[in-house]
This record gives sequence, structure tokens and C-alpha cells, in this order.
Amino acid sequence: MRNIEIKINEERNVRLTAYIQEANGEFLFSKRPAILVLPGGGYAMCSDREADPVAAAYLKAGYQAFILRYSTGEHKKWPNPLEDYEAAMEYIKSHADEWFIDREKIAAVGFSAGGHLCATAATMAKNKPAAAILVYPAILKDICDVCQPGMPQPNEHVSTSTSPCFIVAARDDRTVDVKNAIMMQLALAEKGVSFESHIYSFGGHGFSTGEDWIITNSVSERVPNWVGDSIGWLRELFGKLTTSGFTAPTVMPSVNADFAPVLSVECSLNHIRKQSDEVIELLAPLFEGIKMVAAARRYSVEGLMAAIGNNTVRELMEMVRVPADVIKSIDSTLHSIINKID
Amino acid sequence: MRNIEIKINEERNVRLTAYIQEANGEFLFSKRPAILVLPGGGYAMCSDREADPVAAAYLKAGYQAFILRYSTGEHKKWPNPLEDYEAAMEYIKSHADEWFIDREKIAAVGFSAGGHLCATAATMAKNKPAAAILVYPAILKDICDVCQPGMPQPNEHVSTSTSPCFIVAARDDRTVDVKNAIMMQLALAEKGVSFESHIYSFGGHGFSTGEDWIITNSVSERVPNWVGDSIGWLRELFGKLTTSGFTAPTVMPSVNADFAPVLSVECSLNHIRKQSDEVIELLAPLFEGIKMVAAARRYSVEGLMAAIGNNTVRELMEMVRVPADVIKSIDSTLHSIINKID
Amino acid sequence: MRNIEIKINEERNVRLTAYIQEANGEFLFSKRPAILVLPGGGYAMCSDREADPVAAAYLKAGYQAFILRYSTGEHKKWPNPLEDYEAAMEYIKSHADEWFIDREKIAAVGFSAGGHLCATAATMAKNKPAAAILVYPAILKDICDVCQPGMPQPNEHVSTSTSPCFIVAARDDRTVDVKNAIMMQLALAEKGVSFESHIYSFGGHGFSTGEDWIITNSVSERVPNWVGDSIGWLRELFGKLTTSGFTAPTVMPSVNADFAPVLSVECSLNHIRKQSDEVIELLAPLFEGIKMVAAARRYSVEGLMAAIGNNTVRELMEMVRVPADVIKSIDSTLHSIINKID
Amino acid sequence: MRNIEIKINEERNVRLTAYIQEANGEFLFSKRPAILVLPGGGYAMCSDREADPVAAAYLKAGYQAFILRYSTGEHKKWPNPLEDYEAAMEYIKSHADEWFIDREKIAAVGFSAGGHLCATAATMAKNKPAAAILVYPAILKDICDVCQPGMPQPNEHVSTSTSPCFIVAARDDRTVDVKNAIMMQLALAEKGVSFESHIYSFGGHGFSTGEDWIITNSVSERVPNWVGDSIGWLRELFGKLTTSGFTAPTVMPSVNADFAPVLSVECSLNHIRKQSDEVIELLAPLFEGIKMVAAARRYSVEGLMAAIGNNTVRELMEMVRVPADVIKSIDSTLHSIINKID
Repeated sequence: MRNIEIKINEERNVRLTAYIQEANGEFLFSKRPAILVLPGGGYAMCSDREADPVAAAYLKAGYQAFILRYSTGEHKKWPNPLEDYEAAMEYIKSHADEWFIDREKIAAVGFSAGGHLCATAATMAKNKPAAAILVYPAILKDICDVCQPGMPQPNEHVSTSTSPCFIVAARDDRTVDVKNAIMMQLALAEKGVSFESHIYSFGGHGFSTGEDWIITNSVSERVPNWVGDSIGWLRELFGKLTTSGFTAPTVMPSVNADFAPVLSVECSLNHIRKQSDEVIELLAPLFEGIKMVAAARRYSVEGLMAAIGNNTVRELMEMVRVPADVIKSIDSTLHSIINKID
Repeated sequence: MRNIEIKINEERNVRLTAYIQEANGEFLFSKRPAILVLPGGGYAMCSDREADPVAAAYLKAGYQAFILRYSTGEHKKWPNPLEDYEAAMEYIKSHADEWFIDREKIAAVGFSAGGHLCATAATMAKNKPAAAILVYPAILKDICDVCQPGMPQPNEHVSTSTSPCFIVAARDDRTVDVKNAIMMQLALAEKGVSFESHIYSFGGHGFSTGEDWIITNSVSERVPNWVGDSIGWLRELFGKLTTSGFTAPTVMPSVNADFAPVLSVECSLNHIRKQSDEVIELLAPLFEGIKMVAAARRYSVEGLMAAIGNNTVRELMEMVRVPADVIKSIDSTLHSIINKID
Repeated sequence: MRNIEIKINEERNVRLTAYIQEANGEFLFSKRPAILVLPGGGYAMCSDREADPVAAAYLKAGYQAFILRYSTGEHKKWPNPLEDYEAAMEYIKSHADEWFIDREKIAAVGFSAGGHLCATAATMAKNKPAAAILVYPAILKDICDVCQPGMPQPNEHVSTSTSPCFIVAARDDRTVDVKNAIMMQLALAEKGVSFESHIYSFGGHGFSTGEDWIITNSVSERVPNWVGDSIGWLRELFGKLTTSGFTAPTVMPSVNADFAPVLSVECSLNHIRKQSDEVIELLAPLFEGIKMVAAARRYSVEGLMAAIGNNTVRELMEMVRVPADVIKSIDSTLHSIINKID
Repeated sequence: MRNIEIKINEERNVRLTAYIQEANGEFLFSKRPAILVLPGGGYAMCSDREADPVAAAYLKAGYQAFILRYSTGEHKKWPNPLEDYEAAMEYIKSHADEWFIDREKIAAVGFSAGGHLCATAATMAKNKPAAAILVYPAILKDICDVCQPGMPQPNEHVSTSTSPCFIVAARDDRTVDVKNAIMMQLALAEKGVSFESHIYSFGGHGFSTGEDWIITNSVSERVPNWVGDSIGWLRELFGKLTTSGFTAPTVMPSVNADFAPVLSVECSLNHIRKQSDEVIELLAPLFEGIKMVAAARRYSVEGLMAAIGNNTVRELMEMVRVPADVIKSIDSTLHSIINKID
């Protein structure tokens, strides 16, 4: 494992630390996933407690790990930290082959102010991470203003192209109120972005990986689970790294295609029903099937539609046994129709 | 382990199933915690998949377990199910000694519609559970109306006396949208109620305990963790059951005393600052300490106050080293002052 | 879940407690696995601490659970307890359909003296369990004689038809020395029987499931893991129970076919080399392959043979790329040759 | 985290790789535990698969981690590898202050041939590790001779001063037979050395940490648990590292004092009974207590003695309620008497 120190911005003292593991040779695969660690510290400093101990956890899981010590203190003025993030991400991508990294599988994890930076990267950056892990992140105006007035609130910038997020917080956090984590969940839910979230009943602020030797206050026994859980979540999103490369992912970055540029059978029933008459007509086999089910079970058609409206058109057509080739043909036609998003 | 069947309401076919384990004898303690299971089924039925398998999990952890098959179908009219809950809880409490149950440690766990019932019990019941576990609960108007228009939305009834909650859901639930779980978190956060929440990236609706033999669709490998996690959460809330009885709890039902009838040092700084001048004066030793810290670290006093405002007065007085007897005396005086809640 | 009490032998006060879960209906499968719990108590009594708490753990995992209170005290004279076991197992098998049990997937778990009974059942019974879980079992003469001189020592009766075993013990057990667990491992290793074993650094004797409310002395934090680990082991041995029935097993009861009545490619190289010249000749393609590998890597042929001798003929023929149809044909011929076991 | 490469023996190409984490500063403690990794490779090479991935696991847990690439191939002649181990350990100890290492808490972990080296270090080295983790270790003559005739068999060198061991293996290991792990357990059991052992039902040879990206054959889902379990075991042996340093250990390197130079109340009853008449007389209060218990419960005195003989004198005196000051006084006298070991 090589340790490389890179100066991203000498003037602002921005440094990227890289820990690079081998590939090929006895390790039969040639590409690893990677993670960029963004420590916290209120944009006043970058905490060591949220740097190496975090990198070590992902190294153990097979990741190439990077720590970005971004602009803080006198250099913290926004968007300096986000620019540092972009520069670091571009540096990593430009060295992807040399460092055995799969360009499509670079995640980021941020803590507190670093969680704010990570969430802005996930929502606003040019080089969005493939997945963002937000640990007790600062999201809302109140806490952002404590660091520096004028910074963006990431929940307000969530869009359908936001990176999938994994959110961690403690209910009794006195520094960054738990509402920060909740409002971020809400924004992701409203835009169809895939996420996972774990709010522990107690743990306060700044528990990092939750290891005994890092925590300074009382934390629930479940708090340290977030590390392994985030690795499991990434494994479902990226596919599993094996000696013969990555397996297929088991979860997608979006929960359906309601926000995609064109229509498809991956859109939800609720969404497709708001499209043109032409689309409704195209889906006649589905609506016929739903009517038959409603009649058989003595439901009202509208009641049943309401109950199943969040299912995708594919899921429902399979449920009412529309033949596979019909589904395929409908999907193909839908792909030629622009998606109307309200 | 005895299996007892109790008819709670013959006409509405409401049944309570009790699984009662021994106490005393080789088990040296005399009281166990208990849990009341409320299966789901859209108020049309009570699902067997969310009954015995759930009871078994808590039995294994030492609980007395109960399953309530509440009013459904033709009998579902609100508040019938909540009345069934109250009757069941009263029945259990009246048999607490006979069944080796600690009256203060009876939790409830509900799924889907049963999660709605559990959340109304936690917010509106006379016999609130000591802790409520809400698994993919129906909370919001849209989904409640699918079951039956006119039922209460539990998030609107959260108050400072609501039971602590443990919330479980899957991001991709097509039946009960993930916003139900999020809005319940938000309501609990706003009223200072303690909670824990786990939203898994995928799992759909109806995964129950997540065991292989129960699930019918694809679930994240982390989904089954909620069962053990909920037991760990209860252990922190109730104390640990040992052969010599319960140990002390490590987490309280409220995150601070901001909503208590009288003031105390467990109130947050933010809250206490909105009280009378008399109270501010009483806390002079705290404000002196904060000013000294601000000066030493070159923070503005207001900036520092904003950053630490969610800490309790006790936590902050200890941080600025106010002597223990002074804290005690201030707390005692605060207890005689009515709490102004806006 | 039904609770049924069965009198196996009235005179000796032998009782079988059955906990029967539903199948079919909402549970789409029709057969469950089952487990028979044999509590400990030095053949003087059957401990409640090793009865219901153990049953609950397997119920949670989907098993039908049985507790046998076998002959103890004045009735303990060997082979009474083993006869009780046989009678209970026959009773269960004769009710397998009524109780939704897969006859081929009935395990047993025994503790201390019950572990001795379980190990004798696994080695000597007519109705061997499909898998045996031995928790701090009494195996050796010294401890068996404390209970009752003249009882069999199960390690001396291990044969190639012994049930696969899962062994649990604590290093610092003062009652049943850890050598009991070690000598049982050794006997299983020598006869090619599949097993798993977990010896924890401390935990003493009698920790049962290791739950806080059961243990009376200091136990390692890893001790309670044995319960879930044993369930995982059974899942690999029995296949995973899903809503559409059991999947295929991932581990076999024997580590190879060295003790089977006829030869096959599942025999180890070491074993096959001790057979007749005819057999050696038949395996010419394998020996050719091994010679080529040895030449290519500059190993001595004998040295390489020694290094790989425990691999099965199939594993090695695949490694040296013998074509699949040749392997199949060799296997078929081997099946007609009697296995010489020394 | 610094990466330092040290040449231990230039001629034999022996290299020590050090990964050094910070202490003090934000990490409030000043000493970390350390681990020395000894990769496998049949003394022909040192496998990368058992080097960095292993180091990363212990780094994550807060350890300083070292990898020793010891003498192999043409330099493998015994005792070269053990000399390399001694030199590496001395190098580490001589830099303990500079590298924030607690000299008393340096463990070693070895795999396969590295497990052989680790086990010889634990039994025969001058600089024994404080704890030894043996993963599918080569122990017995057969397999040792495959690597190189004439190497010591570690189980034959186990003594009362052997390091506590944590043993890991798979039942179906075709390269290093499971008997290697079993015979090592037996040797440790016979000399009173503390140990823990996990034999998984399947996993073959060479699974390293069991991560998906390292394993090349089928392994039980439990196999990767050994890593976290070994860290938990070390935490019990070394005490827990917290921000204020190490807590007290919860398990000792020996299970009793039967092999100590002088007697004490930590000796077992069985052992103390084989000492002089003078000692027996000194323990009169204990024997009186045992007689009273035997009479009360209608046991024979000898039967009871046999049943409890492995308990320590202290445990038994406390059980029969010998006053604490009497125990203390007896212990003090025992300390002046030489221990007779047969």
C-alpha cells in the first residue's frame, strides 16, 4: 500500500493524501472502487479524527482511499472548498488507470462541515461522486451560517441527478440538529433519488467511525455499525468486487424513471397517468389488467390505482401478466416520447 | 412457555394471543419486559406474516410477547382499532404480576396499518406504550385514506408526551411511500421526543422480520438487522435485563427538558434564553463562563451561543466548570419556575 | 404458534414440548426444518435455562421447536435417556406431515449432559439427527463418570455415518474441561465427518444462549454469536428456507467420499492412491496432468502429490483440465469398484 | 498514517513494512497496540493477499501495523525465518516510543506457513508476541515437511509461557489438514494457556480476511467474522483502547496458576490436592465448606470434589463463603510455597 501526498493548492494549503493498494498479480482483478474522505471541523480545520481512521475502514474493504484537506480557516470562503473537491476528483480521475481505479465507482464520505461539502458535491458539483456518505452533515441555514454565511444549503439543490446518499446522524446531536439529516432525506425522497439513512438514538456529534479510541462521549452500541453498513450499501450500488471484477449492482441510483428525459416502463403508474392521452392509450393492456383485478377483488378501480400508484409500469404489467414481448414493445415506444415533469 | 388465547371483543373478533415465559426459579429475576405486536394488513385483515415470526424474535430476547388481532374489515371503523389496543393494554397491565411483567416496560411494534395503529397509540392513547416500533408505518393522509378516510394522521398528534419511537422503512416502498417515515421523524424531532430511525435503500413493503422464509421480494442484506437493532434500542431505553433485574437506562424518552412543565438544568441553552430576565440572571455563572471561553478562543459571544445553543444548561455549565453544588442549587431554583413554551 | 405437551414415558416422567408454527397460507412453503432441544443438568435434572430460551432462538429462524425432558435423577440409568431420544424423534417423524416438518431436516441441540445425549444420538442412535449442535458437551470418561459410570464416550463411537456436528465451548469451562470439545473435533476429523467448532476464550459452563438475562458469570462478548452462527451453519447444510421451499445445500455431511462403500471422483487423491493397480491405471489422465504441472513448476512429483493429496480426484482433474466427459466416465467406472478402507 | 519500509536483512531480502498512525493531539491517548503480520506462501514466497488486506483490518481497529516479509525460497532454511521474526520484533520494540506503541501489547498474526512461523514465535521465541493469531497454520510434521524437513512442530513446544493464541481454520482445508488446528488447541489446553478457536465448516485454504475480492473458492458466510472476532479477543486480552488509554483486561493469558512457580489461590482444586499435606492442612476452611455442601445436597464428598476440581481455590472458597480476609491470608501463605508440577 503506497502513501502519496499531493498538493492540490499550495497557496490555500489544500492537500490530498492517497493510499493506493495493489491490483492484478495475486489480486486477479484490475480495478478497485475508491473513496474520497472529507473530514469535518466547521470549516475552521480538518479533523484528524475523521481522516485516517475513516480511510482505514474503506481500505480494509478493498477501496483506494483519499483524504482531502480542503480550504479552511482564512481560506474557507465559499466556493473554495467545493473547488478543492473538484480539483481533487479530477486529479484522482486523471490517475485512475495508474492507481487501478474504476472511474465510475468513486464515492465520497464527509463529516459535519465535510458532510456539507460532500452534500454540495453530490448535488452541485461537475464531478459528482458515484455515491455520497453524509455523516452528521451540516445541511440547513442555521448551522451553515455558524460556519460562514452565504454557503449553499444542499437540500435546496437536490435534483434528479443528485448522487445516491447514505445519511448517518445521532438523534441527540447538539451541534448539528437531527433536522439537518431529516430535511436531506425529504429532499432526496421528493426527487426520486435513492438513499439510505440511519439515525441513532444517541451518539452526539463527532463520533467518526464510533471506535472506542475515537469517541469522546456516550454513543449507542449501534453507532459503529454505520461503517460496515455504508460498505454494504456501496457494494449493492457498485456491485461486489470479486477476483474476476465487479458483479452487477442490485440497487439503482433512482427509485424509478419519473425524472428521466424520456418515458419508459420504469416510470411509476402515478407519473405515467399525468402524461398525454396518447400515452394512456398505449398502456391499454395495463389498464385492462388493473380493471380485471379490481373487479375480481371488488375494489374500486380508482381505489386500486391509488394503492398501487407508486409501482412502476413494468412491475404492474408483470403483476397483471402482460406478455413480455408486449411490455418490451410498449417500452420501446415510450422511449420515443418526451417525459413531462411538473 | 405458555400460549394463552384471550377474547378482547367477541363481536368484532378481536383476539389477544399471549406467549408467557417463566420467571423466578432458575431465572433469578422476577419481572420481564413485554411487547405487543400489531400486524399489518391495510385494516382489511391481520397478516400472519407479521404476527408469530415477530413475537418469536422478542421471545428470544427475553420478552413476554402478545399479538393483537384488532378490528379489521367490516369492523375497522375508527376508533375501533385504537379501542382494541387500549383494551389489550389494560388486560396485559391487569395481569402483569401473574405474567411476570414490569408494567413500565411494555413496548409495542406495528407494521404498515398496524404501524399506523402503533403510532396513534404512541401519540394519542391513554395507555401509551413505553416504546413504539413503527415498521413501514402508514402515517400520512394519502395512504391512510386508502385504508379508511377520517383516520388520524399520527404525525399531527405528536406531542412532548409521545412515546419514544423506532422507525423502520425501505426507500423503495411502493405501497407506503418513504415520506411517511420521514414526516414522522420530523414531528418527533420538533417535539423533543427521543427516536431512532433506519431507512434501508431497498426492501419494498411487507418484509416483516426480513427472514428468507418471509420475504417475497428483493431486500437489502441490511434489512433483517432492524430486529436486533430494535432490541438493542429497547435495552438502552429500559435498561438491560440481567439475572438480578434491570440495569439503569442509558437513554431518556426526551432529548432535553424544553417541554417539561417546569424549568431545569436539562433545558437547552436556546430554550432557557427565551425565558424571563429573572432566569437569565440566575444563570449568570453560565453566561460568565461562555464569555470567557469566547474571549479565549476569539469567538463572538453570539456566534458561540448559536453554535452551542442545543446543549443543555447542565452540559454547558459542566463544560465551563461551574461547581457541582452551584449547578445543583440553580437546578433547584429553576424547578420552581413555570416553563414558558412558545 | 401452538404449544403441545406430549408424554413420551409417563413412568419416567419423560415429556416432549412442541412449538408448532404455521405453514402454507400466507407462508407459501409447506415444510419447515425442526430442532429438538436437549437441556443439560448433569442427568440430575433438565435445566429450564437451556429449554425455552433455546427453542425461541430457532423459532425465530423459522424452525419447529421441540424440548425433550428426558430421564434424569432416579431414572437416569443409561440407556434410558437415549431411548427417550429415539422415542421423541420417532414421535416427531410420525407427525411430520401434520406439523409441516421436512423429515430430512430435523436437527438436535444439546447442552452439557444434554450435549452428551446429543453426541450419542449423533453417533449411535437409530434416528440420528440431520445435524447435531453440541454446546459445552460432556464427552470424555472423567466427566461422564461424574454423572454416571458406564455411559458411552461419544468420541469413541464416531463413524463415517455420524451426523455433522457444530461444537461450542468456553476455554475456561471448569465443569466440562475444554478437552471434551477438542477430542470430539479430533474424532470427527479422523472419520471425514463435516463439522464446525467455536471455542470462546471465556464463558465458563452453562451460558446457554449467552443472553444477558441467562448468564450468571462473565462471558466473552462473542459467546452469544454461537446461536446465530449455528443457524447459519444449518442453513448451509439444509439449504435456505424461502417462500418457495428449500434451496440446495452448500456444504455436505462428509468432507469427501473416502469412507463411502464404493469409489468415486469425490475420494481424495491420498485415498485413491491406496487402492488397486487397476484404479491407478484408470486415473492415468490425472497422473499425467500432475506430472506436467510438476515439470512446469520444477516440483518433484512426489512432493506435489503430498502437497495436494487431500484434494478430491474431481478437484484435481478439473485443476489439470481433464475434459468433463472424461471425468464423468472415470467416475462412472469408479462407482462399480468396492472402496478399500484401512 | 506513515508508510515506512525497513530492511531487516538485505542479503536475505527480509523487509519490514510499517504503517504508523498518529497519537496524542486530537487522539488523546499516547500509546497504541500493534500487530505484526506474517503472510503465508509455503516458505516459497510471502503472499500479497495475506499482507496489506490484513494490515488494513487492524489499522481500522486502531493498531500500528507491520508486515514482515521473512526469508523464503533459497533463504528459507530454518531458523532463518524465526531469526527474521526476532529481528523485526526487536526493531519494533526499539522504536516503540517514536511510533506510539505500548511494548506490552504487540500481537502477531500469521497465515499458513506464516502461521507456522507465528506459532513458533509464540512458543519458542525470545520476543514472544503478547498474543498470537494463527490462521490455517501449518503445525504438524506432514505439512511442515512439505515446506522443509527439520522445522519444529509448534504444538510440541507449547509450554506454560506460550503466548495466548487465537486459532482459525476451515474444516475442508485440503492443503493444511484441520488436524493441525486441533492438535494446537490440544497442546494449549494441556498447558493451561488461554486460547480461542474458530473452525468453519468450509472455506478451504488461503481465504485471508475472507473479503469477496480476496477469496478464490467457496467459503462459509461466517468465515470473514474471524477478523472482527480476533480484534474483540485482543480487546479482552489487552484492555480496550479509549481516549484515556487502555482499560483493564477481562481475560488472562493462563486459565489458572497451576503452572506458576509458586502456589496461590488461583490454582485449581485438582492441582492443589496433589501438593504436600501442609498445603492440604492450610486449606482446611475450604475442605470444611465442601463437606458441608456435599452433606446438604447428599453428594459424596469425592464425587463433588471431582465435579468441581477444575475450579480455582479462590472461586471455591468464595462459593462456600470463606471470609475474604481468610482467603487473603491463605493466598499469602501459599505464595511462599514452591509449586510442584508433575
